[in-house]
Amino acid sequence: MTTPAPIDLRSDTVTRPDEQMLAAMAAADVGDDVLDHDPTMRALEERVAQLLGTSSALWVPSGTMGNLIALMLHLKRGDRFLAPRGAHVLNHELGSAAWLAGGMPDPLDWDAGPGRPTAEAVRAQANLTMAYDALHTTLLCLENTHNGAGGAVVPPHEHARLAAAAKELGLKVHLDGARLWNASVALGVPPAALTVGVDSVQVCLSKGLGAPVGSVLAGEAEFIKAGRRVRKMLGGGVRQGGVLAAAGLIALDRIDALGDDHDNARILADGLVEQGWQVTAPQTNMLLAAVPDVQLTLQRLRAVGVLAVPMNGQVRFVTHRNVSKSDVEEALRRIAEAGV
Amino acid sequence: MTTPAPIDLRSDTVTRPDEQMLAAMAAADVGDDVLDHDPTMRALEERVAQLLGTSSALWVPSGTMGNLIALMLHLKRGDRFLAPRGAHVLNHELGSAAWLAGGMPDPLDWDAGPGRPTAEAVRAQANLTMAYDALHTTLLCLENTHNGAGGAVVPPHEHARLAAAAKELGLKVHLDGARLWNASVALGVPPAALTVGVDSVQVCLSKGLGAPVGSVLAGEAEFIKAGRRVRKMLGGGVRQGGVLAAAGLIALDRIDALGDDHDNARILADGLVEQGWQVTAPQTNMLLAAVPDVQLTLQRLRAVGVLAVPMNGQVRFVTHRNVSKSDVEEALRRIAEAGV
Amino acid sequence: MTTPAPIDLRSDTVTRPDEQMLAAMAAADVGDDVLDHDPTMRALEERVAQLLGTSSALWVPSGTMGNLIALMLHLKRGDRFLAPRGAHVLNHELGSAAWLAGGMPDPLDWDAGPGRPTAEAVRAQANLTMAYDALHTTLLCLENTHNGAGGAVVPPHEHARLAAAAKELGLKVHLDGARLWNASVALGVPPAALTVGVDSVQVCLSKGLGAPVGSVLAGEAEFIKAGRRVRKMLGGGVRQGGVLAAAGLIALDRIDALGDDHDNARILADGLVEQGWQVTAPQTNMLLAAVPDVQLTLQRLRAVGVLAVPMNGQVRFVTHRNVSKSDVEEALRRIAEAGV
Amino acid sequence: MTTPAPIDLRSDTVTRPDEQMLAAMAAADVGDDVLDHDPTMRALEERVAQLLGTSSALWVPSGTMGNLIALMLHLKRGDRFLAPRGAHVLNHELGSAAWLAGGMPDPLDWDAGPGRPTAEAVRAQANLTMAYDALHTTLLCLENTHNGAGGAVVPPHEHARLAAAAKELGLKVHLDGARLWNASVALGVPPAALTVGVDSVQVCLSKGLGAPVGSVLAGEAEFIKAGRRVRKMLGGGVRQGGVLAAAGLIALDRIDALGDDHDNARILADGLVEQGWQVTAPQTNMLLAAVPDVQLTLQRLRAVGVLAVPMNGQVRFVTHRNVSKSDVEEALRRIAEAGV
Repeated sequence: MTTPAPIDLRSDTVTRPDEQMLAAMAAADVGDDVLDHDPTMRALEERVAQLLGTSSALWVPSGTMGNLIALMLHLKRGDRFLAPRGAHVLNHELGSAAWLAGGMPDPLDWDAGPGRPTAEAVRAQANLTMAYDALHTTLLCLENTHNGAGGAVVPPHEHARLAAAAKELGLKVHLDGARLWNASVALGVPPAALTVGVDSVQVCLSKGLGAPVGSVLAGEAEFIKAGRRVRKMLGGGVRQGGVLAAAGLIALDRIDALGDDHDNARILADGLVEQGWQVTAPQTNMLLAAVPDVQLTLQRLRAVGVLAVPMNGQVRFVTHRNVSKSDVEEALRRIAEAGV
Repeated sequence: MTTPAPIDLRSDTVTRPDEQMLAAMAAADVGDDVLDHDPTMRALEERVAQLLGTSSALWVPSGTMGNLIALMLHLKRGDRFLAPRGAHVLNHELGSAAWLAGGMPDPLDWDAGPGRPTAEAVRAQANLTMAYDALHTTLLCLENTHNGAGGAVVPPHEHARLAAAAKELGLKVHLDGARLWNASVALGVPPAALTVGVDSVQVCLSKGLGAPVGSVLAGEAEFIKAGRRVRKMLGGGVRQGGVLAAAGLIALDRIDALGDDHDNARILADGLVEQGWQVTAPQTNMLLAAVPDVQLTLQRLRAVGVLAVPMNGQVRFVTHRNVSKSDVEEALRRIAEAGV
Repeated sequence: MTTPAPIDLRSDTVTRPDEQMLAAMAAADVGDDVLDHDPTMRALEERVAQLLGTSSALWVPSGTMGNLIALMLHLKRGDRFLAPRGAHVLNHELGSAAWLAGGMPDPLDWDAGPGRPTAEAVRAQANLTMAYDALHTTLLCLENTHNGAGGAVVPPHEHARLAAAAKELGLKVHLDGARLWNASVALGVPPAALTVGVDSVQVCLSKGLGAPVGSVLAGEAEFIKAGRRVRKMLGGGVRQGGVLAAAGLIALDRIDALGDDHDNARILADGLVEQGWQVTAPQTNMLLAAVPDVQLTLQRLRAVGVLAVPMNGQVRFVTHRNVSKSDVEEALRRIAEAGV
Repeated sequence: MTTPAPIDLRSDTVTRPDEQMLAAMAAADVGDDVLDHDPTMRALEERVAQLLGTSSALWVPSGTMGNLIALMLHLKRGDRFLAPRGAHVLNHELGSAAWLAGGMPDPLDWDAGPGRPTAEAVRAQANLTMAYDALHTTLLCLENTHNGAGGAVVPPHEHARLAAAAKELGLKVHLDGARLWNASVALGVPPAALTVGVDSVQVCLSKGLGAPVGSVLAGEAEFIKAGRRVRKMLGGGVRQGGVLAAAGLIALDRIDALGDDHDNARILADGLVEQGWQVTAPQTNMLLAAVPDVQLTLQRLRAVGVLAVPMNGQVRFVTHRNVSKSDVEEALRRIAEAGV
């Protein structure tokens, strides 16, 4: 008896480039992006800028680097920044927001729902004293969808209120939009409706959209020009990046297909609830399950060919373009049969 | 009509050296502390080490530098540290714990009372995964008394439980004891009873004890040796520091006198309550008053010759050796007459 | 009349992936390299480790990041490092060796020839005092070929003497081998003959070898494990990097072909000398020309369809796999006809 | 037979405060300098600003911190700074100019004499390209007197040419004037004649002038305001600093007396030359002696009761206010009798 091929629900980062993408990569017009700009890189950056409603954009090797560049430009030593509790920049980027970008974080509670802080909290926590010996709050860092809250969506009116509060207080706004495409599809609004009032936004091409490598940082021209320099500092400038940008351009054609992942996440959630699991209702392509012993559950799942990961004391399942509806149904069968 | 001399209740940092201290400073045996150790510095460092139960100690120009050196030695990039919400290292040191010491902070709620986190929270929040891409929690930073919580005291059994939890989890422990002397007097226990299990502790000579300048960082010999190097890096090494150490030695003779400041804080609190104020019951030499408009109240107080400062959305009053019982009574009269 | 297509002699970084490489990229077996290692990445890293004689290796997006990770691991604050004057880590990486890796540089003169310091200078300049208030020299950073010295080669016996001096003094050794392949071919020795005694070495796949993106940092297993964490910190971890690693594997089959670039560089140098230019004799694929006005010469060259760059006050020409012998001859004709 | 009291020629940092200074310290009017400025601190800062021809000044605990604050304000990541080879900021401040202020150093040779670079070198080495991927030279850091060059003086016309070259190139200028007073006395010009064109200057009160602790950073008001914040970040803000400032004010009355130290240095140099030593002609209060074995010579000197230190491979002697002419003569006798 052979072990069945595992159904990989660990993350949408496991998606692999498909034929069309690989063909585009092979056909890409490339140049030396450090020396004089690669034309396919340029086309990708322009397209993302347009989608997000900014004047400019910059390709980066990872979402982590995109967030880091933004924070390095927005923050300086002696600054404090606000971010929702559990944000990726607080928990999953090795603290570079602190030691490299120079900011002291101040977490915002989820008063408006999972992953969603309120504008009132932004106003209450911002330290606006200009005293020479005080931290100065200068940045609000948002995340949509909020990964640590199980792919939770911040709707446009809430986003707008948060951004407006920040502007009122003189704060810059950065949006970690690694999965902004998912929020856009789930809400049925264009991505630019979710970037209103931001000074910078980072989006990933390598998660649900399936490109092998790359994210994009978008903002106004001066900001992006400065970001290009910081990218070079960190070692994120690449040469013939057009091979990756070509995949990114194909990825951007597939935003609408994320709806299938969301449907599959709901099927998975419903099936697990039927089996007696306690799971969050998925808003996008993720669900979190509360279990008594996370490591034990993950082991049992792995034993029957279902892969998931721990997330903030729960088990996280993620659907994506390399997992079909029938894969999800098969995963539910395996879990049921094994009595995980 | 003349304005009366203001009664300064802003902070115990305003205390001025007295005759005895100034005489000791003038008589101090000094040397070049950068080149070969100043004898009076050495005597002060030995005395503090003994009081705190450590093998070694190092004079520093300020408590902020003492905390910073400790955090620079305990933390490295990619580390996370736990500290009570509102801690001095989080809110009042310009974020150097983050950008200079390299740590990403993770605030602990005050589940055991004002300024007092629980050992359970330490266990729950410590991220002990050794995953290569995760933050590693490596330090617990305590504060006793807790300034932001109005001079709140952490009793020895709670401190011991917190330190034990940290050790169990493999975390280092730093104690910001800028006002540890006040906690010791309020609790009626020796200072060393409050440093059990710590890897480093910082105490100030320039607050309630009245020395003009200086704090001391204490720990084991290897740690202090490394700290001496970091102090030099930051520009905190001084030459004939014995003039300041001599004042510090006198200051250490005055720990018990802090009890008077605590008595005066209670007199002030009782008087304000009688006048209808809503104030915290002082545990040491501070009290916090909740008022509708902090800036307005501070202005009115100043107008009648009483000085206080804002602290976390409240008005903070601090008693100290340059404010006598009759000064406090006079302050209450001024406040009452003016109907502040 | 149309302008002829320019002959691009600015850098070997302008090389474009060819058909074979693109086919390999499309056929690559990939995985999520952040989550659990991509198999093609793994194969590439193993092959480079073997070529360089180390036990382990790590793919990075750029040579700049490879050098930076090595320096971040080898250096700490209060350390000094030695590097040849004009080294890439000193002049072309935005100072990250200083502000991010924490080292104070100490340049070595070129006493043994262009780009080549002596072991005697290493011994003379290393500050080995362990005084608490002194910088401690802890690292020797070499570069082979030396870019700023026009692609100059450090022969194995000189390299060995430098590394031996470093070991004797207790220094770590990092080798910036962005163009180590060129040195290996020019000297007719295997790459591993040029990495004797190093603690880390960085090599590029995207210069003369023609891969679109990527470099590799090699060293012992513990070092590379730590490097993987630092790469994540900097945002250099990627997902399905196998698409790039596949190109890298093809690139490694082409090391010997660098000999053609070296031949072409000599043809170019000889031709320029015949036309009265003052140029360095190329040791690998670069030459530097001394001219009265660098910017003016670059403009004139561009006007006739020959691209070059300024380097340390001279004009630098670089040959590479996308420039054939006849391209070089055509470049010489254009320069002669225009009387540049 | 007893060992005679050693004559301490290690550094002018060993000077001890005298009666007059101690009396002034005891009588000082003090305040809390972190909260609202200490009046004696203020008086000292104003007096230094006036002496140096700047509008503002800031007390700091050490010259190292004064230089560090200036460099932190003038430099940012991706910047390069020029400083004479062997400068204190390069060799004796634990590299903080690099890792903390963010600058990549570029040493200037001593083309105009010991410790003295030329304006031509400044022009030649400044990298003024604004290329996004290049280091930008933004600061010239001077030192007068130059410690590593044995207290060498930079005369006003050379200083002016260096500062003018910097301005022309758009560079800021910082002057490490730890011993600027000595240069002023040796040249017979007011201190302000040596600060022409600088953006910041640091002077020490604790070396030849004999104050126990402290230096002053001077510059324009906005710069000093920013410096006050940085000083707080580093932990250099102190409370009743007036006790130290009072000593500083007395110290400033003693600038002219440095001439005696210079006379004594010449007597020492002449005496050593008579005994066959090879020594530099002292320009101020230092001399460097070339000896075959520095450590051996230092040991022999110590054995006969004469203390000196190693400096850049030579033996350094420093005269100061706690060493009289007859002490110097006695030192020469001890050296002669012992045949060191």
